[in-house]
Amino acid sequence: MEKKPEPLDLSHYFSEMAKRRTESAITPFLQAVSSSVSNIGAGLPFPGNFPNDTLEGALGKVNRFPLHPVSPLSVPSSDTERFTIPKFSSISPASVDPKEEIDLASALQYQSSSGYPSLAAFIQDWAVNHQNQGKIPYANPGTLISGGAGDGLAKCLMTFADVGDNILVEEFVYFNAKDMILPFGVGLVPVQLDNEGMSAKSLSHILEHWNEKKQGKKPHMMYTVTIGQNPTGGVLKLSRKNQLYKLCQEHDIVIFEDDPYWSEQCNIPVTPPSEFLASLVPSYLTIDVDGRVLSLQTFTKILAPGFRVGWIVAQPAFIEKLTFATNGTTSNPSGCSEVVLSQILLRDWGVKGFVRWIEGMRVNYEGRRNLLCEALAEGRDISIPIHTSANYSEEKTLIRAYDFNIPSAGMYLWVRVDVSSHPLSHRPFSLPASKIILRLWQHLVGAPYSLLILPGNVFYATPEVQKKFDEEKMGFFRLTYVAVEARDLTRIGEEFADGVKTFWEGEGWEESTSEEEAEEDDGAEHYEVRKIARRYLNARGAGRC
Amino acid sequence: MEKKPEPLDLSHYFSEMAKRRTESAITPFLQAVSSSVSNIGAGLPFPGNFPNDTLEGALGKVNRFPLHPVSPLSVPSSDTERFTIPKFSSISPASVDPKEEIDLASALQYQSSSGYPSLAAFIQDWAVNHQNQGKIPYANPGTLISGGAGDGLAKCLMTFADVGDNILVEEFVYFNAKDMILPFGVGLVPVQLDNEGMSAKSLSHILEHWNEKKQGKKPHMMYTVTIGQNPTGGVLKLSRKNQLYKLCQEHDIVIFEDDPYWSEQCNIPVTPPSEFLASLVPSYLTIDVDGRVLSLQTFTKILAPGFRVGWIVAQPAFIEKLTFATNGTTSNPSGCSEVVLSQILLRDWGVKGFVRWIEGMRVNYEGRRNLLCEALAEGRDISIPIHTSANYSEEKTLIRAYDFNIPSAGMYLWVRVDVSSHPLSHRPFSLPASKIILRLWQHLVGAPYSLLILPGNVFYATPEVQKKFDEEKMGFFRLTYVAVEARDLTRIGEEFADGVKTFWEGEGWEESTSEEEAEEDDGAEHYEVRKIARRYLNARGAGRC
Repeated sequence: MEKKPEPLDLSHYFSEMAKRRTESAITPFLQAVSSSVSNIGAGLPFPGNFPNDTLEGALGKVNRFPLHPVSPLSVPSSDTERFTIPKFSSISPASVDPKEEIDLASALQYQSSSGYPSLAAFIQDWAVNHQNQGKIPYANPGTLISGGAGDGLAKCLMTFADVGDNILVEEFVYFNAKDMILPFGVGLVPVQLDNEGMSAKSLSHILEHWNEKKQGKKPHMMYTVTIGQNPTGGVLKLSRKNQLYKLCQEHDIVIFEDDPYWSEQCNIPVTPPSEFLASLVPSYLTIDVDGRVLSLQTFTKILAPGFRVGWIVAQPAFIEKLTFATNGTTSNPSGCSEVVLSQILLRDWGVKGFVRWIEGMRVNYEGRRNLLCEALAEGRDISIPIHTSANYSEEKTLIRAYDFNIPSAGMYLWVRVDVSSHPLSHRPFSLPASKIILRLWQHLVGAPYSLLILPGNVFYATPEVQKKFDEEKMGFFRLTYVAVEARDLTRIGEEFADGVKTFWEGEGWEESTSEEEAEEDDGAEHYEVRKIARRYLNARGAGRC
Repeated sequence: MEKKPEPLDLSHYFSEMAKRRTESAITPFLQAVSSSVSNIGAGLPFPGNFPNDTLEGALGKVNRFPLHPVSPLSVPSSDTERFTIPKFSSISPASVDPKEEIDLASALQYQSSSGYPSLAAFIQDWAVNHQNQGKIPYANPGTLISGGAGDGLAKCLMTFADVGDNILVEEFVYFNAKDMILPFGVGLVPVQLDNEGMSAKSLSHILEHWNEKKQGKKPHMMYTVTIGQNPTGGVLKLSRKNQLYKLCQEHDIVIFEDDPYWSEQCNIPVTPPSEFLASLVPSYLTIDVDGRVLSLQTFTKILAPGFRVGWIVAQPAFIEKLTFATNGTTSNPSGCSEVVLSQILLRDWGVKGFVRWIEGMRVNYEGRRNLLCEALAEGRDISIPIHTSANYSEEKTLIRAYDFNIPSAGMYLWVRVDVSSHPLSHRPFSLPASKIILRLWQHLVGAPYSLLILPGNVFYATPEVQKKFDEEKMGFFRLTYVAVEARDLTRIGEEFADGVKTFWEGEGWEESTSEEEAEEDDGAEHYEVRKIARRYLNARGAGRC
């Protein structure tokens, strides 16, 4: 096999905190723990004292979700297989390679920050040889188990971000990423999006024209969701990725690629499982000759969020610092999650079965997407009175109240609402789009619709992005087709369309909007949405919390 | 019931990062998710797609570990009860109070940063009404599920620490706490310890004489292990806690009380379980009139480390910021761990059973402690040739090579080694105690002893602490009695004593110590220990990793 080149040394971008992180003084001692040594040093509680003697369960078979037809309405198989995780491996523990060990005595014990050896080994093989098909261009790419993609991002920020830094993001950003980035004292620099994803032209413009005096530190980090962009559902093809990567090389930028939806790509043919992985648009990792990409992966979307387990793929020097960051914050993820995942992936399913499961999920998601999109497309054109600046006429015209691109991956559908024809856009109200969207949100979540959707406002990277779309009289909602019963999606899509229509007809705002209220100036307050949501929730006595 | 006063507003000590943390824009929307609303907004994958249909297991009964006699050699009961966690609660989900919900559909789903509702409710009740017996002096103490006591500490540091701050610690510090604190750019300020714990006199002296010009920012944080101090095993009684707390009030210090060993107190009578909790030395929380204590709790020592679940108890304003920190980093802990813990604590055992289990653990730990202490006490006096500055005489004398205080709680035994009579302390070697300890470590971990212990060096808060003990010709080892089979503790204790004796007799160093090597000046490098450990591990081909 051809020897791959070493990645670049990019340690000049480690944060002050990361520079202070070193291997723990204790690491070599924990490495000395073995069955041939009597451990009276490391505080590992005796596993015989753990209360759990087995962990068992019924697990879906890998073909639970059919590949044909592409319909989420086809009934999933209820066949299960049973597993039993024993307290102690049946063979003598001394002889067990830790990578083969799947038992409660080891899983419920303290672990190194690298996580459970059997799961770590599976993930290393999966990430390098299967997910990225052996194409990561540099030598010895590394992986580290994380507590999910979000935890992975937090650790990347600890490792690369200092107060006063700036980070490149798409102009619509996953809200939780904002919650993670902003407390680090890091500014968001929005790059324009098109249907595919981040625009290379916009990125180039920002980087070429960066003015440190006016704009502060030039960004050395990028946070991006390239496959199933959240919220737009776009997929950044390899050709665009190459353009963007080149810019990141020129301007020396490290890329945090948040990639939870990689296997939920749509519009690709259903393949035999053996060809499935190769049929997917690949990650930045596969073109990362420098080692400047940190890929944030998770089991959340393909198995379940509650495991709180994911992994990071990156060059070894990055993985080392991230492992120190793990040691200094969370430690390894839950052994309970890890051992169940090891059991599923290594014992019950294997790589082949796992691929089959993932493809079933993909098909299920695509079918769900189709149902919602069809219902939404059906109702997007509504007939409204022709509006003149003075008053309404009796004459009607057909307008497209909302529209959307069919998502290419992921779980979300990004609905654009053109409010230019809505009365609230006009005198005497003249509300900005971002406020009209909140009124429409309130209308849709209330009776008779009871639809919980997310207003686009919470995704705007900065107040400037909101301003831009306010000027275009454009607002957004993020919808998802993964959360409810598939059979309800058509009805829900129709209800959404009906709700928009009645909102244009005056319901949900006419009686409640005073001209004074409309004139309140809080256009820049894009968290206004929280207040409206609370007002609504208080009125109806709230739900879960 | 008497109304309790509000805690003080101590928000002036929030870190810059904490000040930037706010509620997520999305929080109200997630609160709106309920069975009466169709969720097509929040990206909660459909639980029918989770692969796990049940999680089951065999669980030890609460009386597995006997209370009488106090001997770890009495055979634990192998009786188990079985549990089954279903995918969906058997009753209609709509009617289920989330606090009653224990099923995979909810546990493997996304959760709020407050964690799994049923477990959060159990912990709130446990912490306030049982562990602290309703004695927390201020109104509405809060709790937050964490990923264990270490994760709790990391979140406290994020919330209270800025670069350049200093934190008060005991002069011997749990190594992982150092790994967490130092990367924040926070300096350790060691306070002297006695057999009980932190010395009030030493703390008062440090705070009264603090010189900002010379020493930097005056500490506003304290990290302390008051019950089963790690490594010394001391327990800080309430009278001393009152003195120290008063100093913290005077000097406005917030206290991170790391408290994993609270229920493993020794030297208390075996009580009926109903009286057990009240018989224990209480936490700082019970005297915390101001709300300046953050108590870090964990299931690690009483159930198992691998759950990676603990909790923080503090005043509500602190809990709020810590919840934001959770949202911005880890999210909730593993739902897999949480649901198993909910099942055990709420369904299978209940509070009463949990208390019985904990008391059984306590008794088991105390019995283990006794076995190791007895064997160590037996062998601590050794007969050595009388040493003169010129050479060895044939005459012998009895010296106490090592000694220890019997630990009052926890898992550790802190062995003091008096090296003043050891030849390496003298010419031509004149090694400092901290280096002799490493030689002795190497001797004990090698054949024929194969004992893994931890050199005290890794616990010194600062190089100055090491220097102080070097001058006293005193070194330390931390031993634990919890990790091996109880029946092996006597033999292991005897082997330790024998290893020390043969080290005094010349084994393990005579042939390998050159005078030049002895003169190397690396006394201040207290991580030297890592190098020695690695050298040893490389020589023998290492164990687990």
